[in-house]
Amino acid sequence: MVSRERLGWIAVDWGSSNLRAWAMSDAGEVLAQGGSDQGMLALKPEHYEAALLGAVSDWLPESGVVDVVVCGMAGARQGWREAAYREVPTRLEALLDGAVMPDVEDSRLRVCLLPGLCQQRDASGREFDVMRGEETQLAGLVALDMGFTGWACLPGTHAKWAYLFQGELARFQTFLTGELYRLLAARSVLHHSLGEDDLDDTSCREAFVTAVGESVAQPARFSQRLFGIRASDLLDANLPRGDARAAILAARLSGLAIGLELAAIGVELPPGEPVSLVGAEALCRRYALALETLEIQSRIIDSERAVLAGLGQARRALDAT
Amino acid sequence: MVSRERLGWIAVDWGSSNLRAWAMSDAGEVLAQGGSDQGMLALKPEHYEAALLGAVSDWLPESGVVDVVVCGMAGARQGWREAAYREVPTRLEALLDGAVMPDVEDSRLRVCLLPGLCQQRDASGREFDVMRGEETQLAGLVALDMGFTGWACLPGTHAKWAYLFQGELARFQTFLTGELYRLLAARSVLHHSLGEDDLDDTSCREAFVTAVGESVAQPARFSQRLFGIRASDLLDANLPRGDARAAILAARLSGLAIGLELAAIGVELPPGEPVSLVGAEALCRRYALALETLEIQSRIIDSERAVLAGLGQARRALDAT
Repeated sequence: MVSRERLGWIAVDWGSSNLRAWAMSDAGEVLAQGGSDQGMLALKPEHYEAALLGAVSDWLPESGVVDVVVCGMAGARQGWREAAYREVPTRLEALLDGAVMPDVEDSRLRVCLLPGLCQQRDASGREFDVMRGEETQLAGLVALDMGFTGWACLPGTHAKWAYLFQGELARFQTFLTGELYRLLAARSVLHHSLGEDDLDDTSCREAFVTAVGESVAQPARFSQRLFGIRASDLLDANLPRGDARAAILAARLSGLAIGLELAAIGVELPPGEPVSLVGAEALCRRYALALETLEIQSRIIDSERAVLAGLGQARRALDAT
Repeated sequence: MVSRERLGWIAVDWGSSNLRAWAMSDAGEVLAQGGSDQGMLALKPEHYEAALLGAVSDWLPESGVVDVVVCGMAGARQGWREAAYREVPTRLEALLDGAVMPDVEDSRLRVCLLPGLCQQRDASGREFDVMRGEETQLAGLVALDMGFTGWACLPGTHAKWAYLFQGELARFQTFLTGELYRLLAARSVLHHSLGEDDLDDTSCREAFVTAVGESVAQPARFSQRLFGIRASDLLDANLPRGDARAAILAARLSGLAIGLELAAIGVELPPGEPVSLVGAEALCRRYALALETLEIQSRIIDSERAVLAGLGQARRALDAT
């Protein structure tokens, strides 16, 4: 039960397929957490307020106004109300400048939807790109580590690599890595051959690291190596049988996919400077291992901590308006 | 109606998802065609004979024995009866040496299932690989063009590139190109952005050729460029609207996927020697256009003609036994 005296504001990360909410004290402490599977894909604009109340109403006071700061797909064009993309380069403290406040019926709610970021193609080598949700994690990284300069990577379905310079997001690139892995593992001819991998297992770890190195060295052979996973399963007498085999081949697919990403981004990473990995721990550890093959160090920042720091920074800016 | 006096033998290409059959004269003329959707995935071993009779029984004489020469998945382990892979390098005239004859109840049938080919990893750079069905098209290429030497490409779900030397299959490589395209087009975030392309349209053609060039030049950026298709759809003010936009973006995806394949294989292709493309015409024309960007010429051999020539060659060998 959240003490209504202590509730300062509410943080929300509203994705395509779910909604996560946190009751926050003014000091930045998490008092309670909630959520639901009512993501953007499941909602029409008129249903967002009820979906929000379903997750947070227990926390609300009987009267008074509570700030609800929201990042992610609720601000997409097909979401609650559009918070148009802001263009990079941009300072990450400035996200609130692009926020919108949807109309609500419950007078206790003041809802603020943060914008995503877009990047236009330009002569300096930037390509068209978009993010919505990750910018708040990056704002959190800058809030936690003032004036942050360097590369941040947010692994996931659509993995983002962003270069920040003294708190400004200079440019970013998105890779379809996670989605590619999932489609191949679940829906291609490879699904007959793959299981669950475990990078704490020596054989899986070795298969993963080898595959990363192969993709980095010869990215052109990616789609050949994909079929090669199937062919190895049929022909390679050195593979163990059963679950161990399926785990090794899954680790290999993961290494090929992440390695292809590193083949592109690795050349941009300055030696000796650690990459900040922002995400779920298991996935970040996988990326850290892949980066080690390029002799690049990394540090892991939990994505929940980052998103709460980013939403908190926006809330402080909102308070100051 | 097939004249029973003229029927010499029956050719069958039995795939994972369908069965195609041809009534052939001894002179190699097609007298009739048939088929069904009773592919390997839909059949248990005991149901193959009935599925075959369903497609060819009208052609059979009341007595006497007819050779039925079959390539493809009917000879897979999970098919009618396994015709074990033969290892490359191998002469393509020798496919019959690995054929098996399943037991049949109808005494008019003498069924011969041709084997697939496999490749072991070796010190010369061969990687694990398999084919089942395509070897018969390659045998057909050799039968049509005795002593064929050069590269043949069989585009498709799992595109095969094979190097033949004087009628011997020396080595081959499979790329997941077609499956990758289909998964991305139908099941990834890109499906919102893609339509049907038409390479006779100038804009589509240009998008395709540009994408091939980008993949060949920088294969490492493949998964970034995939997401870039989505981002372009959201941001690129130079794209037309509606179907034209969706067609251009589909051509771009096709070009990225085929270009990634050419990034790997292109370096192996000797300049000045045309590639033999064996497949459906529209897909072969797409590959021919992609190859032109590497200044590589090609010729197209219809896959039906190739498979019938390959099955016919096996039938002559069977007759001679």
